[in-house]
Amino acid sequence: MAKELTSRSENYSQWYQDLVIKADLAENSAVRGCMVVKPYGYAIWEKMQAQLDKMFKETGHVNAYFPLFIPKSFFSKEADHVEGFAKECAVVTHYRLKNDPSGNGIVVDDDAKLEEELIIRPTSETIIWNTYRNWIQSHRDLPLLVNQWANVVRWEMRTRLFLRTAEFLWQEGHTAHATKQEAIEETEKIINLYSEFAEKYMAVPVIKGLKTENERFAGALDTYTIEALMQDGKALQSGTSHFLGQNFAKAFDVKFANKEGKEEYVWATSWGVSTRLMGALIMAHSDDNGLVLPPKLAPYQVVIVPIYKKGEQLAAISEKVNAITEKLKGRNISFKYDDKDNRKPGWKFAEYELKGVPVRIAMGPRDLENGTCEVARRDTLTKEVVPVENIDEYIEKLLVDIQENIYKKALDYRESMITKVDTFDEFKDVLKNKGGFVLAHWDGTSETELKIKEETKATIRCLPLEYENEEGKCVYSGNPSSRRVLFALSY
Amino acid sequence: MAKELTSRSENYSQWYQDLVIKADLAENSAVRGCMVVKPYGYAIWEKMQAQLDKMFKETGHVNAYFPLFIPKSFFSKEADHVEGFAKECAVVTHYRLKNDPSGNGIVVDDDAKLEEELIIRPTSETIIWNTYRNWIQSHRDLPLLVNQWANVVRWEMRTRLFLRTAEFLWQEGHTAHATKQEAIEETEKIINLYSEFAEKYMAVPVIKGLKTENERFAGALDTYTIEALMQDGKALQSGTSHFLGQNFAKAFDVKFANKEGKEEYVWATSWGVSTRLMGALIMAHSDDNGLVLPPKLAPYQVVIVPIYKKGEQLAAISEKVNAITEKLKGRNISFKYDDKDNRKPGWKFAEYELKGVPVRIAMGPRDLENGTCEVARRDTLTKEVVPVENIDEYIEKLLVDIQENIYKKALDYRESMITKVDTFDEFKDVLKNKGGFVLAHWDGTSETELKIKEETKATIRCLPLEYENEEGKCVYSGNPSSRRVLFALSY
Repeated sequence: MAKELTSRSENYSQWYQDLVIKADLAENSAVRGCMVVKPYGYAIWEKMQAQLDKMFKETGHVNAYFPLFIPKSFFSKEADHVEGFAKECAVVTHYRLKNDPSGNGIVVDDDAKLEEELIIRPTSETIIWNTYRNWIQSHRDLPLLVNQWANVVRWEMRTRLFLRTAEFLWQEGHTAHATKQEAIEETEKIINLYSEFAEKYMAVPVIKGLKTENERFAGALDTYTIEALMQDGKALQSGTSHFLGQNFAKAFDVKFANKEGKEEYVWATSWGVSTRLMGALIMAHSDDNGLVLPPKLAPYQVVIVPIYKKGEQLAAISEKVNAITEKLKGRNISFKYDDKDNRKPGWKFAEYELKGVPVRIAMGPRDLENGTCEVARRDTLTKEVVPVENIDEYIEKLLVDIQENIYKKALDYRESMITKVDTFDEFKDVLKNKGGFVLAHWDGTSETELKIKEETKATIRCLPLEYENEEGKCVYSGNPSSRRVLFALSY
Repeated sequence: MAKELTSRSENYSQWYQDLVIKADLAENSAVRGCMVVKPYGYAIWEKMQAQLDKMFKETGHVNAYFPLFIPKSFFSKEADHVEGFAKECAVVTHYRLKNDPSGNGIVVDDDAKLEEELIIRPTSETIIWNTYRNWIQSHRDLPLLVNQWANVVRWEMRTRLFLRTAEFLWQEGHTAHATKQEAIEETEKIINLYSEFAEKYMAVPVIKGLKTENERFAGALDTYTIEALMQDGKALQSGTSHFLGQNFAKAFDVKFANKEGKEEYVWATSWGVSTRLMGALIMAHSDDNGLVLPPKLAPYQVVIVPIYKKGEQLAAISEKVNAITEKLKGRNISFKYDDKDNRKPGWKFAEYELKGVPVRIAMGPRDLENGTCEVARRDTLTKEVVPVENIDEYIEKLLVDIQENIYKKALDYRESMITKVDTFDEFKDVLKNKGGFVLAHWDGTSETELKIKEETKATIRCLPLEYENEEGKCVYSGNPSSRRVLFALSY
């Protein structure tokens, strides 16, 4: 097999890199830090988009599109936001090139300098809230529930395909509300939506929680997060939903007349998930043979490979396969029939394992005689010979089973990797020798949080919503703590 | 009515501008030349995208995503392309901002100057063909049929919402083939696909043809176009499909081993439609009351307005309406029930006329008694009282009828606006007093083409595919001509 992967135990990071490239998901481009999302990878992203978009619309959101460019001065208007976002970014300074007078290609035309530089959006709060000022006058204009699918740019120094790239694709929701309570409810509604998407579609279990002040979105009063666990024991922040209070409304002067006719500042939320989810999906389930995709997001759920020596055998197999694919269509099961003659079945088996196709059907001359086919599932790598009759029903159930199984496997792993500790020695020991999430008491101060980070590289991933408050002592300072929080090393 | 439009006869250009803004389709942003596509406008664009994407996939294409940025040097590699595209564009020169030492907000950090400037893609041939070099080795890797949905930037000096904006949304297909013949077939397949989309979904009749050398895409050997006619008698280029020969393969050194093992350069096509189609859609059908949308692209096809004085009347009407909407859902007819109490029915009628909703249903107390409702169609502005029983079937047929009728209306107008002329006086007279397309003999030289443009502002929109060759004399030079070509003033 030409496309062998580095194994996870040998070098997890190299395994990931190999997998993304060899499974044709994405590759680095000629532009530093920017990736090319290849057709197979993009097909998975499209499935994610379609499902998320459906969920946004079912909860009353509409899509719109705002400019790629943000005037530099907009960033200075919200004090925290400028610190967080206006630094490492792509800056447009000119709007024209010209032929080099010395004959060497083209050069920037100094006469075409912009009066004010434009920043490629790293996130769109500023340009959107500048627009909302004209859209919102009365309480009748609220709530405004808008989402945007877009590309954004953050000039990252160390990039990794899908996980951290200079340009990435995402959706960003920006909502406006008449009351604080309603904005908080929206923030929570979305983090629940993200969590449902991650668990039901990506089959990735996540922990919902609040970020600490240090880890909050620049400009937010509260940031909700979903945190997933990768197979190397590191956490991956997979989606965030921010309660922005009235910060952006004040920065961009967005007021509305309430029912009593009194002017008030509008309450805001913003929330997003990105192509980073691709990284989470890949790392959560895949193995040393390649990708493992949940059936709900696989570009095709079934691949069918004919096994034959002579042309007439292929014809007979293809006839049978056509009958099967007709039935699959009837159940909305997506498939690919790979009858190309330039590769042996063994090569194809390895290729589709690498690409994570949930179910493989193989059919040879003996199957024709017996009215059977061989069905292999990617998640368990097990095979079974089954009758062709009712194969569609069999496959439909199998896909449900695979979806559930890979979720359960990821959940079992995640549960086994949440460790409660009560001393800082235990804390460091777990991080070093086991990894995963560490549930520990924390005194609530930034000082302690930063010291722990300095000493262990672990950060507070979130204050989990699902755990009960519990009195205790901070694992680091020994000061009183009212709850355990979730620490981990992270991407 | 607060939202009155300028009439078309008074000022067509102002009418268009008013309509786009008052119907909530788009607006100018704080960034020069960049638009905000508002939710109602974006919902129409999403319907266009969904249908086009389906048609691309049905013809074997897959989606992918390439970087927003293109290294400056890439543009110099294809000689014609650089002339056409590398001039008016957004140039990224720096990757960091810093706090102004003098305390005035943020400024560009001179230490963060890029070694090579990056251009925001005006079109992606260069970066894509640079990538294809690694994707294509053998004839087995071909054809490569890739599409991208993306934003692009061309620094236009005079912009108009949807029709010409600095940033716009589009799809760009980039295909690679083993033979010239196959690439030409692809180019033609796509122009036919665009034409089918324009006519069947947008209800906009188009003329397919070839561009002259002057009007070709920079870097193409042939450009196919679809040309639509607007109500002011001007043509609008609505989509193009380019046969690129081996130009980009040679510029980026993309070769493949053919079946005999010999290395050859790859053959290329590219093709695109953009948010400019929104402009075509708006201008082709709308009237002085507002938008007229074809049912196949309307965000909602039916609006239902209750007419009542008292609360209990509304309750009784709503109950009846719910029964109707259940039936509409069963037929996949999209609708909006507007029972908001802060506007009078008359205001709502005008509002939904402005927004081009194909069918309006009104229901009042008398309708309740009679088991009827009032159905108004937007295209003809006619009303009819119809029984509520079987209303879903009635509406379904009506939507088909409206779709056909607005196409037919646009086609009749377009046909009446194609004028054959044989002298240059006639030519000028038609352009001045009638407008529309002028079918005239042309001697095939750029010189004549440019002189005609200079004297009349008319350009050759295309060499139409559908007309027979016909011997004649050039309307301008009197030299022999083998065919008539299509002239018009244009957007």
